[in-house]
Amino acid sequence: MGDSNPLLSLDEDPVAVEALLRNVFEIVVDEAIQKGSSASEKVCQWKEPEELKQLLDLELRSQGESQEQILERCRAVIHYSVKTSHPRFFNQLFSGLDPHALAGRIITESLNTSQYTYEIAPVFTLMEEEVLKKLRVLVGWSSGDGVFCPGGSISNMYAVNLARYQRYPDCKERGLRALPPLALFTSKECHYSIKKGAAFLGLGTDSVRVVKADERGKMIPEDLERQISLAKAEGTVPFLVSATSGTTVLGAFDPLEAIADVCQRHRLWLHVDAAWGGSVLLSQTHRHLLDGIQRADSVAWNPHKLLTVGLQCSALLLRDTSNLLKRCHGSQASYLFQQDKFYDVALDMGDKVVQCGRHVDCLKLWLMWKAQGGQGLERRVNRAFALARYLVEEMKKREGFELVMEPEFVNVCFWFVPPSLRGKQESPDYSKRLSKVAPMLKERMVKEGSMMISYQPHGPWANFFRVVVANPALTCVDIDFLLNELERLGQDL
Amino acid sequence: MGDSNPLLSLDEDPVAVEALLRNVFEIVVDEAIQKGSSASEKVCQWKEPEELKQLLDLELRSQGESQEQILERCRAVIHYSVKTSHPRFFNQLFSGLDPHALAGRIITESLNTSQYTYEIAPVFTLMEEEVLKKLRVLVGWSSGDGVFCPGGSISNMYAVNLARYQRYPDCKERGLRALPPLALFTSKECHYSIKKGAAFLGLGTDSVRVVKADERGKMIPEDLERQISLAKAEGTVPFLVSATSGTTVLGAFDPLEAIADVCQRHRLWLHVDAAWGGSVLLSQTHRHLLDGIQRADSVAWNPHKLLTVGLQCSALLLRDTSNLLKRCHGSQASYLFQQDKFYDVALDMGDKVVQCGRHVDCLKLWLMWKAQGGQGLERRVNRAFALARYLVEEMKKREGFELVMEPEFVNVCFWFVPPSLRGKQESPDYSKRLSKVAPMLKERMVKEGSMMISYQPHGPWANFFRVVVANPALTCVDIDFLLNELERLGQDL
Ligand SMILES: Cc1ncc(COP(=O)(O)O)c(C=O)c1O
Ligand SMILES: Cc1ncc(COP(=O)(O)O)c(C=O)c1O
Repeated sequence: MGDSNPLLSLDEDPVAVEALLRNVFEIVVDEAIQKGSSASEKVCQWKEPEELKQLLDLELRSQGESQEQILERCRAVIHYSVKTSHPRFFNQLFSGLDPHALAGRIITESLNTSQYTYEIAPVFTLMEEEVLKKLRVLVGWSSGDGVFCPGGSISNMYAVNLARYQRYPDCKERGLRALPPLALFTSKECHYSIKKGAAFLGLGTDSVRVVKADERGKMIPEDLERQISLAKAEGTVPFLVSATSGTTVLGAFDPLEAIADVCQRHRLWLHVDAAWGGSVLLSQTHRHLLDGIQRADSVAWNPHKLLTVGLQCSALLLRDTSNLLKRCHGSQASYLFQQDKFYDVALDMGDKVVQCGRHVDCLKLWLMWKAQGGQGLERRVNRAFALARYLVEEMKKREGFELVMEPEFVNVCFWFVPPSLRGKQESPDYSKRLSKVAPMLKERMVKEGSMMISYQPHGPWANFFRVVVANPALTCVDIDFLLNELERLGQDL
Repeated sequence: MGDSNPLLSLDEDPVAVEALLRNVFEIVVDEAIQKGSSASEKVCQWKEPEELKQLLDLELRSQGESQEQILERCRAVIHYSVKTSHPRFFNQLFSGLDPHALAGRIITESLNTSQYTYEIAPVFTLMEEEVLKKLRVLVGWSSGDGVFCPGGSISNMYAVNLARYQRYPDCKERGLRALPPLALFTSKECHYSIKKGAAFLGLGTDSVRVVKADERGKMIPEDLERQISLAKAEGTVPFLVSATSGTTVLGAFDPLEAIADVCQRHRLWLHVDAAWGGSVLLSQTHRHLLDGIQRADSVAWNPHKLLTVGLQCSALLLRDTSNLLKRCHGSQASYLFQQDKFYDVALDMGDKVVQCGRHVDCLKLWLMWKAQGGQGLERRVNRAFALARYLVEEMKKREGFELVMEPEFVNVCFWFVPPSLRGKQESPDYSKRLSKVAPMLKERMVKEGSMMISYQPHGPWANFFRVVVANPALTCVDIDFLLNELERLGQDL
């Protein structure tokens, strides 16, 4: 060990490190960014798993590989990956590429730190605070608390955990067995993370009382009231309502004012799952969809969805100013949160979370916001609404497109009715045959790599498509393409 | 909306996107990577929070900013951030920069997808499987299951949730109230995430029974046996033991064989928290420290620590082959996991987790492994052990360094005894005065930006330093610097 050389050839040689990264960066720019967002390229390169395994040669061996081989591997990984920033990727609640956000992500990865202490994340500790403050202001709060979580599902869990802790601080030490049976309420259109969260948090999925939604997918406050009475009558203690602003499939916004009234009456914690719809708060034109959100106790909001900042970026926002987050999750580990530090340890955020190491998720959003300004982001949100509207109007002009409902958000749900089924609505196997159309079209589009749209059965409805208009690079040309392409792919059905 | 122009000036113009990213990349290479890992630069630029806020101008406004301003901001963010890849960053259980892992991270960010379905993450679905398989083989399992979680804390929670579900599948629906009171066991040296997890999962921190550790920080199996009897006598049902391979502060390895014997006798789920020490499995020379790990039911292992792949990368590995993970966490959301897909939906991993969107954490590890080979990684682990040993031996040659104990891993815990305290061990206020030394030295090193080492009080011990030898770029020169620098900073104390 007397030598003073580091272990790795690349580490010895900053020039080699730089050369590698430069080469990789060129590949990323050409293959992932330029081609990946070019309408003239494929959105995906479908391969069967077995073939793809062969092509990628995934096995990890003892022997290392040459730089040339590694660069080839980078190319292959990108080539066979789905291009989520492609203008024909309509498949998920995220799509598109914001270059400033990507710049923020690259800086984040190169700095590689953890959000737990000011000591090792001074910039990001202050930045996270500032970004959360801004999001809270949009919710309508001039004070409060919050933290970025690894996804909306976990943000939702935080809300549930905080609500029960606030009511029964005992449960932190003594657990749920020391508590009466609890009940929480959400609509049948809610995201599945509410049930997953209830199971994970030890409440059990039975503790989730499902409230009816109207034909547009909005929670019915009267049924909420009814469910609360029912739960009480059954001997359980209602403690939380999770309303949804922007449901996953239909894009519905629950009536928050009416729900807040119910919560107030029964003294229930109001959580708003605005993972998807939260970004609408940026738009003066459309933010009325979330009227009442300022009455919530907590809000989950994922900028990684509509704001295109990249996975993962999910804010949990709280109205609380009593340090509930730290009291609920803190454990005062002495090796990380020493009390005799030379700076104000209130800055250390690590004890607000149930994680230890925590990825920096604020920089990409901050940098994008700085570049676009609130105005730029507002224009983007308005533009997505307008393009979704354009899609709907164009559909109405064409045969074979049937809306599930008029959208109020950027989820456009519809059936493509192929020629052989048009006018056959009355035939007894219509619904069964219709439900086969979307999977078939999906297979065709994916295998051709021309487009990606998700479909699902939902409630009483046979498989329908859900187009999500979220990519800020979209134009009417892309929307026209989508319609033409569905017609082309489905003409023989 | 008749126009066919996208919203954003940058989006209109692939050339501008490319120019921005190129400029940012240059800044990253110069400021974060080259300077960030150069011993002649500072490891941190300490600023008081108020001053730093001013310098960064964090506020988010309506108006966007010019590209020039944005690039200036990128420079500032990097400048004031702590350089965790710097050879004088000894502060956490991660340090250093692997260029291939960084390349993998940049590709991951540019592709921006989620791990939930094969449909949108074909490459990463197969790759995650392959990487997990490789990690399982190192544990000693030829089959099994697993998933990457956002950090070791959450991996640990998964283990606890799986263990209780396996024993009481009912709890998923009915919650903990339907179960007898449960007890889990871990040593007093365990990571704080075990208690945080117990609270979050609704078990309560009281359900965590703390087992004694010996003077080296290893769990005492006889005391485990005793605690189990005690818990049973108190009417609780033991269900899990969490042993630690590589404790956070002392770097201790619990005796897994003896603990596995106890678990077998009492039919308890054995979880091994190898978040820190798991990477030692790569070394033929040192992997004996984890002997018995193949008898575990679950293992948490964070390649983002010793293997330097970057936050976050934490694998939860399972011996189970009965699809426990999916049964425990699944909710079969029809909008994501359609059963009539045209490919084998068993490939979709989304229902193995309690998250919905899930960041891709496998590529960076896979790419680094391909480049280094298992051999290269093994050399790195061995090298870290050897350098830690070098540090210990050099300390012994100098006055004023007192080891807390001989390390068996790469955590080197010691006191720096300044000149005024040497030979005063017997004085009544020795310990009190000694405990002031580390915080004072820490303040000095951080304000000068010369080095970062964490300190903590621990058990009976006054504040001591914990140097973590993890950065693969370290050489003996850096270790010598560390010792000299402590002497220099502490010479007047
Ligand atoms: C309404 C809603 N809530 C929560 C989530 C979960 O967010 P994440 O995927 O970040 O866990 C989603 C995801 O689609 C969602 O649509
Ligand atoms: C032994 C041990 N387990 C678990 C963890 C938690 O890992 P993470 O920070 O990824 O949550 C740590 C973190 O330092 C640790 O040292």
